[in-house]
Formats: sequence, structure tokens, C-alpha cells
Amino acid sequence: MSTLVVCSGGLDSVTLAWKVHKESKLELLVSFDYGQRHVKELDCAASCATELGVAHEIIDLRSVGQCLSGSSLTDDIPVPDGHYAASNMAATVVPNRNAIMLTIAFGIAAAHQYDRVAAAVHGGDHFIYPDCRPKFVDAFNLMQASALEGIGDILTYTPFLNLSKSDIVKEGNLLGVPFAKTWSCYKGGDTHCGRCGTCVERQEAFSLSGVVDPTTYEDSDFWQTTTR
Amino acid sequence: MSTLVVCSGGLDSVTLAWKVHKESKLELLVSFDYGQRHVKELDCAASCATELGVAHEIIDLRSVGQCLSGSSLTDDIPVPDGHYAASNMAATVVPNRNAIMLTIAFGIAAAHQYDRVAAAVHGGDHFIYPDCRPKFVDAFNLMQASALEGIGDILTYTPFLNLSKSDIVKEGNLLGVPFAKTWSCYKGGDTHCGRCGTCVERQEAFSLSGVVDPTTYEDSDFWQTTTR
Repeated sequence: MSTLVVCSGGLDSVTLAWKVHKESKLELLVSFDYGQRHVKELDCAASCATELGVAHEIIDLRSVGQCLSGSSLTDDIPVPDGHYAASNMAATVVPNRNAIMLTIAFGIAAAHQYDRVAAAVHGGDHFIYPDCRPKFVDAFNLMQASALEGIGDILTYTPFLNLSKSDIVKEGNLLGVPFAKTWSCYKGGDTHCGRCGTCVERQEAFSLSGVVDPTTYEDSDFWQTTTR
Repeated sequence: MSTLVVCSGGLDSVTLAWKVHKESKLELLVSFDYGQRHVKELDCAASCATELGVAHEIIDLRSVGQCLSGSSLTDDIPVPDGHYAASNMAATVVPNRNAIMLTIAFGIAAAHQYDRVAAAVHGGDHFIYPDCRPKFVDAFNLMQASALEGIGDILTYTPFLNLSKSDIVKEGNLLGVPFAKTWSCYKGGDTHCGRCGTCVERQEAFSLSGVVDPTTYEDSDFWQTTTR
């Protein structure tokens, strides 16, 4: 099964790339630059591609990002601190981001006649991001079956869809993923801030998994004091 | 109903923009530069926006276009002459193009809280482009309902879905659309070539509709000699 992996450079999608590389034929990593302030995650995706010896395309979507204003991931709105919760993380929703990335990935997969597009959506994202839910993935597959009828028969591969982030850390640990070379922090500073939603989620996932967290955080205590 | 119109600058989508402008609240025209050789269609979209007094965004997708190789619309493959037919126009399929453009348009509509995204897919495109068929539009709407659950309730508006191109010419004529300021030719020369699939389709549509065609063609006789 020749597979394209949508890889942001984050912990989840880098682990997915390693998993696909082990299980089947990893053809290409595709990343997206949509003007996110944590653009350094793309360096981690590039490093993952080098490590796995696979091609890497960074798709320039900055022109799209400029039109999707209103998210703290792309604009001058501050990234909220604290645990992921509907009340604060709604500010990090880039509308339709996954649908946009996946349709582009499917176009590339069709052009190259790959079998699958792998995406690292996981259970922890369901409650806040609608385009990470199983219902979305099912509807997306049906849409693509229509859009590519007679052109290609491509499926999504979303093995983490109903796993938690700590499950992903456990799996990545078994695969030997170099977690220190993955990026989560939405603030995009020199080191992980330790306070934003993804930093809190990352620290909690390592703690729950029992795997040692190799990440350097500016504030490594905050996550235990914040509640959902 | 506040509406975004996906407008390539072609006859169909410019007519759609005029129709929406007359019927409801036309908010924005969105065009895409995916590295197509007929990029001059974008000038026609800009001219339409000026004429209707509406904002216009050109989304830079050249980085995506480079990865969707294998279509004569973007590559150095010659654009085939003659009537649209599966045997020759398959070379003009940019895989997943409509799905990609529509997901981006939906993201922009969600960010601006518009009600609708209008697209000029029509009956004449069904047999060759799967992402122009009613089945695709239905599946796309279901996918978007999942992807934007809790964020926005946006629908596609595709009033030409089951019309022929000559029906669109008739409607555009009633609306007063300046057809001379629309672009169809896939070859993207100084004037319409008159020989490629879209030029043949354009000339046939005017002929069938009984509306005078104001377009200058390099070869204005060829279309009557070619058969499906």
C-alpha cells in the first residue's frame, strides 16, 4: 500500500510517518505552511523525512491562511494558556483546515497513483475540532470516492482516530520515534512554552504513557496546576 | 443570503457572479492561481469584480499545482484540439481540483460567516470531470456539514448543475453579462484559439443559444468540423 502521510512535524504525525514506514510503503511526507506562528514544526517534518529517507513536499498555503483570519494560530490573537477546553481552544480553530489539507493530499496522491493518504487525527481532538471526528473522516471518504471516480481509488488511513495522545506516545516509543525532534507548541518560540493547550496535552500524554518526555519546556510545572 | 462565488473568470462563473449579484448579497469573488497556462482568465475574474463592485481574492495555489502534475492545463503536455470527449479531454483533468477549491472557499466562508459558496459546475462537465457531478456536490455538502459542525452552516449554491452551457449563455444574456470579458481557452494565448475543447464548447453554446458570440477566435471555423 503506497502511502502519502500528511505530516505537520508534530508528535502525532511524525509517529504516524514512522508507523507507515514500518508497515508499508511510505512514499511522501506532505506539510503545509498556512502562515502558522509555529512554523518551526515544518523543520521537524523535514527532519523526519530525512531520518526516514523519504521525499518531503511543503505546500505553500500562506495565501489561504491570510483569508482564514480569526484563529490565534495564524493571527495576532494571543494563544490561550491552559488545558484544551472548548472555552479557550475555540480560538485555535482554523476553519476547515483538515478538509483543505486532505483534499490537497488526495489530489497529490491521485496524481502519483498512491493508494492511501494517512492523517494523524486522534481521539483527543474530537471534542473541539469537528474535522478530526470519525463522522468527518467517513463523510470525507465518501466525498473523495465521488470526486475521484474513474481517476483513483484512494482511502484515508487514520489508525489513531480513536486513540488518545498517550496511546500514540506509547506506540511511538515502541517504534523508536525521536520525540525530541517533534514540535507541538502553538506559540512557536525557541523552546516549547509548556503552557499552551498543545504543550499541556503533550506533557499529560507523556505522563500518562509512562514514557520519559525528552522535551525542554519554558514552564514545566504549569500543566499539573491547570484543570479542564 | 451572503454568498461567496468561486470565479475563474470563465463564461460560466462570471455569469454565476452576475446571477448572485442580482438575486442576493454577493460578498466576495474567489479565484485560484494553480499555475494554469490560461492564467489570463484571472484578469477576467478581476474585471468582473470591478464591474460588480465586489471584493476579489486570488488564492495562490501554484505550490499545489506543481504537485498535481500530469494535466495539460498545468504542464507542458499539449492541450488537445477538438470537442470535449473522454478520449482527449482526460488530459485536462487536474485531479481533485474542484474539491480543493471548494474546501478552501468553505474555509473562507466560515471565517467570514457567509451563508453560501456558489460554484458554476454545469451539466456539460459531468461526463468527463467527476468532481462536477451532482453526486459529488451532495457528498461534498455532507462532508462540509461534518467538518464545520458548530462553526458554520454553509451550503453550496450550484444553480447551473443540471443546465447546459447554452442555457448559461441564455441566462447570462438576460443578465447583461459582458461575455467578451470572460475567458475560456485552455491554451491561454492572446485570443481564444477556437480549437481546444473549451473553445469548441463555447462556440457551440453560443450557436445553440441563439445569442451573438462577441469572442474573437484565431480559428472560428474549426468547431463546426469536429465531432464528438
